[in-house]
Amino acid sequence: MYTRPSPLGKSLDSFSRFLAAFRRFILKDDMARLVLKFGGTSVGDLERIKAVAVRVKAEVEAGNEIAVVVSAMSGVTNRLVGYVEEISPLYDAREYDVVVSSGEQVTSGLLALALQELGIKARSWQGWQIPVHTDSAHAKARIISIEGGDLIDSMKLGEVVIVPGFQGVAPDGRVSTLGRGGSDTSAVGLAAALEADRCDIYTDVEGIYTADPRIVARAHKLDKVTYEEMLEMASVGAKVLQTRAVEMAMKHAVRLQVLSSFTNKPGTLVVDEDEVVEHELVSGIAYSRDEAKITLVKVADRPGVAARIFGPLADASVNVDMIVQNVSDDGKATDLTFTVTRSDLERAVDILKKNKDDLGYQDLASDSDVVKVSVIGVGMRSHAGVAQRMFKSLADEGINIQVISTSEIKVSVLIAEEYTERAVRALHTVYGLDAK
Amino acid sequence: MYTRPSPLGKSLDSFSRFLAAFRRFILKDDMARLVLKFGGTSVGDLERIKAVAVRVKAEVEAGNEIAVVVSAMSGVTNRLVGYVEEISPLYDAREYDVVVSSGEQVTSGLLALALQELGIKARSWQGWQIPVHTDSAHAKARIISIEGGDLIDSMKLGEVVIVPGFQGVAPDGRVSTLGRGGSDTSAVGLAAALEADRCDIYTDVEGIYTADPRIVARAHKLDKVTYEEMLEMASVGAKVLQTRAVEMAMKHAVRLQVLSSFTNKPGTLVVDEDEVVEHELVSGIAYSRDEAKITLVKVADRPGVAARIFGPLADASVNVDMIVQNVSDDGKATDLTFTVTRSDLERAVDILKKNKDDLGYQDLASDSDVVKVSVIGVGMRSHAGVAQRMFKSLADEGINIQVISTSEIKVSVLIAEEYTERAVRALHTVYGLDAK
Repeated sequence: MYTRPSPLGKSLDSFSRFLAAFRRFILKDDMARLVLKFGGTSVGDLERIKAVAVRVKAEVEAGNEIAVVVSAMSGVTNRLVGYVEEISPLYDAREYDVVVSSGEQVTSGLLALALQELGIKARSWQGWQIPVHTDSAHAKARIISIEGGDLIDSMKLGEVVIVPGFQGVAPDGRVSTLGRGGSDTSAVGLAAALEADRCDIYTDVEGIYTADPRIVARAHKLDKVTYEEMLEMASVGAKVLQTRAVEMAMKHAVRLQVLSSFTNKPGTLVVDEDEVVEHELVSGIAYSRDEAKITLVKVADRPGVAARIFGPLADASVNVDMIVQNVSDDGKATDLTFTVTRSDLERAVDILKKNKDDLGYQDLASDSDVVKVSVIGVGMRSHAGVAQRMFKSLADEGINIQVISTSEIKVSVLIAEEYTERAVRALHTVYGLDAK
Repeated sequence: MYTRPSPLGKSLDSFSRFLAAFRRFILKDDMARLVLKFGGTSVGDLERIKAVAVRVKAEVEAGNEIAVVVSAMSGVTNRLVGYVEEISPLYDAREYDVVVSSGEQVTSGLLALALQELGIKARSWQGWQIPVHTDSAHAKARIISIEGGDLIDSMKLGEVVIVPGFQGVAPDGRVSTLGRGGSDTSAVGLAAALEADRCDIYTDVEGIYTADPRIVARAHKLDKVTYEEMLEMASVGAKVLQTRAVEMAMKHAVRLQVLSSFTNKPGTLVVDEDEVVEHELVSGIAYSRDEAKITLVKVADRPGVAARIFGPLADASVNVDMIVQNVSDDGKATDLTFTVTRSDLERAVDILKKNKDDLGYQDLASDSDVVKVSVIGVGMRSHAGVAQRMFKSLADEGINIQVISTSEIKVSVLIAEEYTERAVRALHTVYGLDAK
């Protein structure tokens, strides 16, 4: 039972519902259906949850239909995961999901209560109630479909629907979770299911910047980036949005906004390329320190050797990123250089050393004091010379390029880690990104 | 997925299943289906949960089919209730249930993992998965029915089924909770649904005693008590079992055992009267300090006055227990004495004073330094003189009896609190309960 509505509250409520309907159907007003997602720091404690309620209330009073996706309160998921791992290091993922999904459940109920306390109708919906159908890969499940019907009915009754992120229900009817950070994916999936006008991801940064503001003082917030750019940024370490969430948004054409729950400023829109009228050549400069380089010296240069090298690494779930094979002098042996994440370096080297006889290389060198710096922008599709300008700029700074890789909208180089700041700042200036 | 079973484990497992089936169907062995319930202190932390798993494993290896009901870990429910009350003092009970039920959910998953870690197959089942159907009185719901089919199938596959206590699902499909202490009721309800041979309630005492061992050094643990006796004991303050749980056990003829999770001794069986071959005259001496006495002096002695006095108290949810009306000397006025719980005393006195003119009494006296002492035993049904012996014994001790009330299997007296220990000890001796 709702404990609150006084007779006056009820009639005010009817009136505001009438008003919203009038705006939507008669005035064709820009009332919208929005999904708002609040991460762990945004719902960190009871005070923050109350603050989120105030923000949601403002969106409701602007006449919008609102669905909210929430994470667990700060530290809760870590505590629950710690319990599981202490009891059973090689845990049954289905029971892990039962334990760990409870954190989001708690936040969803508390936010519903906080909204009711502000006079806003609200109701929590657990993953199994909606339902959010996932596959059976417990602890790292993927969303298969979300049935939005009950939620839409609830919103049409003027209720804010509150959905715990990160959780769903597997084909066997048991609770599933999407893996750490899965709440972004929950929000995007829900926005697609509800045909929402926008999915706002509230976080602790104000949006997507042209570069890391801690390194580049003149970095500025972007109004818009494309899905493709966002994906490239995520792949080089800008961990604002989960990659899977961006991919899903792109697939279902869900307009995303990344913004801060601690300020009242508009954030960055992540949208389809068509929505960006004029493309800058380069949208941003990103970097990733989570890189390590391995060089195999004098590998036999014959068919099948690459497969024999990278096969065992893939089997051990070592992700290989940039790969460069030098042209061999004599057609018999070649040097092969590639990068892995730093945490995988030791394991990768072990595997390669164990297989040394089979692979037939002469020597192995590794280096973890490297960084990957990337320039990203959909504009470079239609412009030549972007990479050339990058290489020249780095050369002017006296920075040696160790490995190069490119995609349609990105050029990445591996350089010595000590030059990170100098490289990022130089490129930010060269591509005209410095704030005026 | 179960992460463990090695090929050897699997064949051992098949063998032990075969053995259990052989025992049950061929040997007609005394293999049993048991429900084990572990309260908050029994699952207080991770170490305690692991200890519970060891205990459950022993029951499994004895060839029994096991369902386990668990409470939340110590302090968790209080913390969650605190969150709810801080955010919304007059909370929506449906959201309260979403938040508060998560505590038992976590324990159920962790115990399943702890059992798996010991090589025992185990699976948690949430209230909505079973389902445990309750009415719609969120936060204080009553169980309507429990569908035991899936759980029985699971147990037949050799799995321990683990059920979070206290929670169910309401007719609207939302999570419900049974109110504080409801896990006992969950366990008994489950035992009825599964047609279990016994429901073991593990707690922090070793069973039901003839009297409070802190007062009577020679008190001894009872092997058996009847449902009726248990109910009377609960009503006079022996808070070992929830009253609703005992009522439900009686209704469905579920054999209960109360025992300690901290020792390895048999506890006390709570059973139907037929199972107790020889009844002691008196099974135990109980007392309750949570009593206060109110006397209305010179109330008009005319029809309807009792209703006018007790009506407003009932409206204010003040529970009135013992009532004595003195014979009036002249047929015009009478003294009325009754008891309420101490926490209700102030409120009761306020109400009576406000209505003084209407009730027409001359004076009001109240006293909270009183205690209710009871002798309880189904044997007294067929024996006269039990009450008389009690009154004489207290008189010999120089203890004045202020109020008397009786039921078929209980005699209670209200005396000054300072005599509690003396009265309980004297009665324990008089009725032959002192341990040899």
